[in-house]
Amino acid sequence: MKLIHANWNFPTAIWFGTDRIHDLPLACQQLGIKKPLFVTDEGLVKLDIVENTINILRQGGIDFTIYSNVQGNPTEANVLGGVAHYNKNQHDGVIAFGGGSAIDAAKTIAFMSGQSRSLWDFEDVGDNWTHADLEGIAPIIAIPTTAGTGSEVGRASVILDEKLHTKKIIFHPKMLPTLVISDPGLTIGLPANITAWTGIDAMVHAIEAYCAPSYHPMAEGIAIEAIRIIAKYLPLAFSDGTDIIARGQMLVAASMGATAFQKGLGSIHSVAHQLGAIYNKQHGLLNAILLPYALKQNESVIKDKMMYLSNVLELPNKGTDTIIKYILELRAALKIPHTLQEIGIDEENAQEIGEMAFKDPSTPTNARPVDALDLENLFRAAVSGDLNRFQV
Amino acid sequence: MKLIHANWNFPTAIWFGTDRIHDLPLACQQLGIKKPLFVTDEGLVKLDIVENTINILRQGGIDFTIYSNVQGNPTEANVLGGVAHYNKNQHDGVIAFGGGSAIDAAKTIAFMSGQSRSLWDFEDVGDNWTHADLEGIAPIIAIPTTAGTGSEVGRASVILDEKLHTKKIIFHPKMLPTLVISDPGLTIGLPANITAWTGIDAMVHAIEAYCAPSYHPMAEGIAIEAIRIIAKYLPLAFSDGTDIIARGQMLVAASMGATAFQKGLGSIHSVAHQLGAIYNKQHGLLNAILLPYALKQNESVIKDKMMYLSNVLELPNKGTDTIIKYILELRAALKIPHTLQEIGIDEENAQEIGEMAFKDPSTPTNARPVDALDLENLFRAAVSGDLNRFQV
Ligand SMILES: [Fe+2]
Ligand SMILES: [Fe+2]
Repeated sequence: MKLIHANWNFPTAIWFGTDRIHDLPLACQQLGIKKPLFVTDEGLVKLDIVENTINILRQGGIDFTIYSNVQGNPTEANVLGGVAHYNKNQHDGVIAFGGGSAIDAAKTIAFMSGQSRSLWDFEDVGDNWTHADLEGIAPIIAIPTTAGTGSEVGRASVILDEKLHTKKIIFHPKMLPTLVISDPGLTIGLPANITAWTGIDAMVHAIEAYCAPSYHPMAEGIAIEAIRIIAKYLPLAFSDGTDIIARGQMLVAASMGATAFQKGLGSIHSVAHQLGAIYNKQHGLLNAILLPYALKQNESVIKDKMMYLSNVLELPNKGTDTIIKYILELRAALKIPHTLQEIGIDEENAQEIGEMAFKDPSTPTNARPVDALDLENLFRAAVSGDLNRFQV
Repeated sequence: MKLIHANWNFPTAIWFGTDRIHDLPLACQQLGIKKPLFVTDEGLVKLDIVENTINILRQGGIDFTIYSNVQGNPTEANVLGGVAHYNKNQHDGVIAFGGGSAIDAAKTIAFMSGQSRSLWDFEDVGDNWTHADLEGIAPIIAIPTTAGTGSEVGRASVILDEKLHTKKIIFHPKMLPTLVISDPGLTIGLPANITAWTGIDAMVHAIEAYCAPSYHPMAEGIAIEAIRIIAKYLPLAFSDGTDIIARGQMLVAASMGATAFQKGLGSIHSVAHQLGAIYNKQHGLLNAILLPYALKQNESVIKDKMMYLSNVLELPNKGTDTIIKYILELRAALKIPHTLQEIGIDEENAQEIGEMAFKDPSTPTNARPVDALDLENLFRAAVSGDLNRFQV
């Protein structure tokens, strides 16, 4: 397979290909953005890929400023600082550059740049989003540098409420970037562990979306193909970070996982969101550890889907246990631990985590209905590594 | 499985579910359409489903007029008549109601309503579409009554050039309907033969898109799932037209097939477009007859994909011949003939058909490169039923 350039137009416009980052000035022109705010995170801003990208902007004659006060698990303060910066410098669009944290923060800055209500008024509950001022949302060009969250094709962001130690989802259809530049070259420098964690995050998006009980065949088709691609290419991208084909496939698959999860997520994300907020651990790593336990807990309702997935992955046997065995092997190959204990999380806050996870927006779309105790049990199983906890 | 209501937002906004047709006045309101032109075809306009729908519009207080001078394989004259009607009555949007012909005509009327150039200036060649006046394109609500062309989610229409006896594709991104109302109840009355022909059209879209050599993994995932759904539900919708679950699944799969074919179509459509123009035969019927011959002709480059598809369809064997055998059995079950001869087409115009098909916009994305002689041979094989013509 050769890596080719391609332009796609659903779920939004996507310009894919190596060196597509050089089309960034053209993208600004096509969207009528004359003075973008370049948003990235505090780690990335020191790296060459940011330096190279802002040089491309300069050479393209684009006037811009940079905002990089964004931490992993971005906070309300990160967003409001960006909004102030955006308005002070009279920007007319946002370039969202980075992993999920930077892109989530950037999308939220673009969204909040012209709103009169406060941030948490737009938490993804009920029809909160309908209260936004449409004219107050800036156009967004998203440029992912990890293959994971797929935030570049999503209409929501996860922002940390530091007062309540909880992650909240901010949603608006117009938070979907107008254009995505998907250049696998930008992900070449990702360390192997981040490659693994973000890659599994994408796989968990696809698996939870596929298993969500809502009716959305197009999302399911995208999810299944994303799982197939990730199964094939994540081990390659992990073992050789310079494998540009594998990097490209993972970048596309991550966008597919996030597109698919408009169908819904599930208990893995419900619990992982809480653990991310409390323990500040990497989101994909948490998902990766939780994954097999959640499959086991959901087993009674996902049997047919796990049979089909075994077929898609051309595994020698079929069924939920076959998929779990496959996941355990994949996880081991990616050097991801089997328990939360191994990354320093104990059962101390189990009850509170179960209760908070129950309120997470991902909970209602879990494959089978779960209550706070189920989520507490999922968490406890993952702490101790007890896959048999949910045996019928 | 229960048929549920669902709202989706890619590739465009889709309101799916039984009785969703009752949301049509709401749809007009949400899109700010105060006086829609209701476009349907000359056959449908006499049927109850049109009568019921315009009653819903009346009861919703929507001011509208009807234009139904649209024939199967709609012509330039059908479109221009609609544009004149639209402008004379000062409409501000289009409701596209019907099968592929009505929706194609309606989309083109909406597109041409505010253009100063002539229709064929927008044939899908080069960057013709960039010369359109964006402000001159009316918003479109599409309501499919067949599960086939998927024109409701497409950005193009096929219009017959009567002078040249050729079908031309008119393309513009803004010809994508803003909203689709996808109500399987509207397809209940379709006769079995039309159900079969339109259903196979959807399957051919998905198969040709899957086999197209371009790189578009999201489209491939959608294509594969569409093939799986059609394989399962088309025989059910054919044998019992009132099976609302099967009708709903087919309606969704048809939209998926058309979404997928943004990746490209192939030689089946290249030849079928010519036969439709010359012999005025139903488009899906032509595709259905051509399908196995084209798979055989493309065999050398689609082997891996046919292996995987055998897996997806859980067939006992794997490979191109297995898929062809499956297609022959499906076609027989749907009472579709094996040869073009059986529907009154002989080899008389074979050379001309090959040459015209070569110029069709679907040709460059065929699985393997084909020239006019290849397409002539494909046509000849389908006339006489010679599946062995392409044996290596
Ligand atoms: Fe995630
Ligand atoms: Fe077709």
